[in-house]
Amino acid sequence: MNMDFRPDRKFALSLDQQDDLASFRDRFVIADPGLIYLDGNSLGRLPKAAVERLRLAVEDEWGRGLIRAWNQDWWGAPARVGEKIARLVGAASGQVIVCDSTSVDLFKLVLAALALHPQRGRIVTDTLNFPSDLYVLQGCAHLLGGRHQIVRIGSRDGDVTPDLAALETAIDENTALVTLSQVTFKSGYLYAMDAITELAHRKGALVLWDLCHSVGAVPIALDACRADFAIGCTYKYLNGGPGSQAFLYVRKEWQEKITSPIWGWWGQDQPFAFDLDYTPAPGIARFLSGSQGILSLLAMEAALDVTLEAGMERIREKSIRMTEYLVDLFDTRLAPLGFTLGTPRTPDRRGSHVSIRHPEGYRINRALIDDMNVVPDFREPDNLRLGLAPLYTSFADVWEGVDRIRRVVEEKGYQKYPTDRLTVT
Amino acid sequence: MNMDFRPDRKFALSLDQQDDLASFRDRFVIADPGLIYLDGNSLGRLPKAAVERLRLAVEDEWGRGLIRAWNQDWWGAPARVGEKIARLVGAASGQVIVCDSTSVDLFKLVLAALALHPQRGRIVTDTLNFPSDLYVLQGCAHLLGGRHQIVRIGSRDGDVTPDLAALETAIDENTALVTLSQVTFKSGYLYAMDAITELAHRKGALVLWDLCHSVGAVPIALDACRADFAIGCTYKYLNGGPGSQAFLYVRKEWQEKITSPIWGWWGQDQPFAFDLDYTPAPGIARFLSGSQGILSLLAMEAALDVTLEAGMERIREKSIRMTEYLVDLFDTRLAPLGFTLGTPRTPDRRGSHVSIRHPEGYRINRALIDDMNVVPDFREPDNLRLGLAPLYTSFADVWEGVDRIRRVVEEKGYQKYPTDRLTVT
Repeated sequence: MNMDFRPDRKFALSLDQQDDLASFRDRFVIADPGLIYLDGNSLGRLPKAAVERLRLAVEDEWGRGLIRAWNQDWWGAPARVGEKIARLVGAASGQVIVCDSTSVDLFKLVLAALALHPQRGRIVTDTLNFPSDLYVLQGCAHLLGGRHQIVRIGSRDGDVTPDLAALETAIDENTALVTLSQVTFKSGYLYAMDAITELAHRKGALVLWDLCHSVGAVPIALDACRADFAIGCTYKYLNGGPGSQAFLYVRKEWQEKITSPIWGWWGQDQPFAFDLDYTPAPGIARFLSGSQGILSLLAMEAALDVTLEAGMERIREKSIRMTEYLVDLFDTRLAPLGFTLGTPRTPDRRGSHVSIRHPEGYRINRALIDDMNVVPDFREPDNLRLGLAPLYTSFADVWEGVDRIRRVVEEKGYQKYPTDRLTVT
Repeated sequence: MNMDFRPDRKFALSLDQQDDLASFRDRFVIADPGLIYLDGNSLGRLPKAAVERLRLAVEDEWGRGLIRAWNQDWWGAPARVGEKIARLVGAASGQVIVCDSTSVDLFKLVLAALALHPQRGRIVTDTLNFPSDLYVLQGCAHLLGGRHQIVRIGSRDGDVTPDLAALETAIDENTALVTLSQVTFKSGYLYAMDAITELAHRKGALVLWDLCHSVGAVPIALDACRADFAIGCTYKYLNGGPGSQAFLYVRKEWQEKITSPIWGWWGQDQPFAFDLDYTPAPGIARFLSGSQGILSLLAMEAALDVTLEAGMERIREKSIRMTEYLVDLFDTRLAPLGFTLGTPRTPDRRGSHVSIRHPEGYRINRALIDDMNVVPDFREPDNLRLGLAPLYTSFADVWEGVDRIRRVVEEKGYQKYPTDRLTVT
């Protein structure tokens, strides 16, 4: 616990006064100042720069430039924006490109990675990984004729932290690929990328990191860790907008040895020669296939610039201060109400969201959204995820969010909601 | 030739006066009234409705609704917009969905189709197909271990029309899949979908149609033709915006027999249960994998509504009148200058663009764009493509465009440009 910690609003305001990122909140549209938004780990807020970039993209470029705009800012966007993301993930130039969704990018890189190890039949992951990643692995194994075994290591503490001893045992000489989410989506557990990558490399396995919940939240050093592959999304802490494109990283040394399974003209050496036979482009561009939704991509690029300006070191430093503060509040104000902490207590092992668990978590989440103007999100079976986005979440938000959670539980406001899950349609 | 045809501007204006779609031009942003835009077959103009829809999506939904907007208009968008496209391609409900790029969708459906015919080793296509489609086929064949032979039938008239006799011969009892662009990208040749599909079915082969250059330009009857699969793009005649999502069609009877190779949570039966094992969703939704760029998707939806309101019959009727008029102008005004027609003369075998060919085509295209405020596009080796988009192209545009082409050639304005191809970067 922070030695100065006090469970009152004044203390939160004092933390905001000391926050040197506080002014970045003004870079975002805050449509409803009363809303406590704790879901930036799912969809980041709207940066004002994205509004302006979209206006230009629509009116000036699409409306006036028409097809000519492709030769200006559009055709080069996947590589240009990839270079910006490279700076956030510790990658030297020419290794990151923006395209498609995380699932499609993961599919491409998993098949490419497995092709580098045709004699090895094991893929290692964990049960804390985002299910879509597991589905992609299962689909790849199915496509390759079922000759790969997917080993999922588990957790010994109710899905908060992975079982690292089991992970070490699972990675063997037959392991082609280890693929994990650097920050897990429910508990926010943060893997030590350097140590795990080294562990895998000692057995000759390749490593693919999913950075969806870490990029923009924690500093990442793909090159320094000698990671082989990575993917990540841009609509969480990078504030790229709903469903904005994913990115992929392929370590330089692998690029000429592999191709994407999805050959297409964007990954072709000379796309406008319109040759009838595929020749992969040199470098990272070969992992492109078709055209990208440019409006989504340019809005995301404008959002990225805000993160680059703030800098990952400052973001991480504030993120740790915020999650520490939230854990202190949890201990004093929520634990007595039947909540348990679903996130590691060690800041080094934690991303930028904190899960709090309660048997009535589903109904509490509904009451918070519908009655209390607080937006966390819920993940089965009992996790309320509280995402702290250092660029715009204030300490006062954290205080107020916890206070409203407390009220919903103490006043039993959640009890009017059914326990049946709403289906998103 | 139209019996009334006269090669003067007044005649063009009289055709515009009789055009019952003329008022639709006002539904689009015309930023530069002097521009003759003949590239709507590559990037359609900006519909005013898309500007407004984007404003709502950005400010109200992303900015104010934040994550809550996913439960409103966003999560259901791939299926909802798919249903709108279904009306344009002659598909009953539940067979079209919007996602990813054409290349990714083609990849998914080619692998799914080939899995239905594991004993057959031949894929038939043509050399007039868009090269990206050929690359995807080559990539699929490579991924499956090289046991498929890709047969590309050619053309006997310089890439204007495919060799249909060769096509008939090529489709044999070993053919798993026939895949063609319904309208070819250079010459605008329009395949008879019904006859070709029947031809393939007689040999037990499946048929996958690429509708990129036909959707929104010609009426399509996928169900009536008993087509098996189709893909198409939305940024050409549907005016969806740069790189807006593609769509895919899977005939109802195949949906439960196949899966997408790219398993992901959007194609999962219960995506928010976050089960660790993949169970494909029933129906067409199983061909989704990851999140879509929502801004691009919603702009495209608004654009689609304009096409639906105009109706494909009226669009096709005007398209034929326009291409006929352009061919008449070609014969009287361009053929004498050394141009040849790169598009079939029979309207039944023609989409909505007309290729005119000239040995100096590349330089003429540059001069038109840079000096004459005309935007066609150029496709190697000598094709100038003139796209006629019935929703906003006027007969006066066609007249004026041809007149400016004539001037560039007569006055040799193109000769100041180098013959070296500019590389798009």
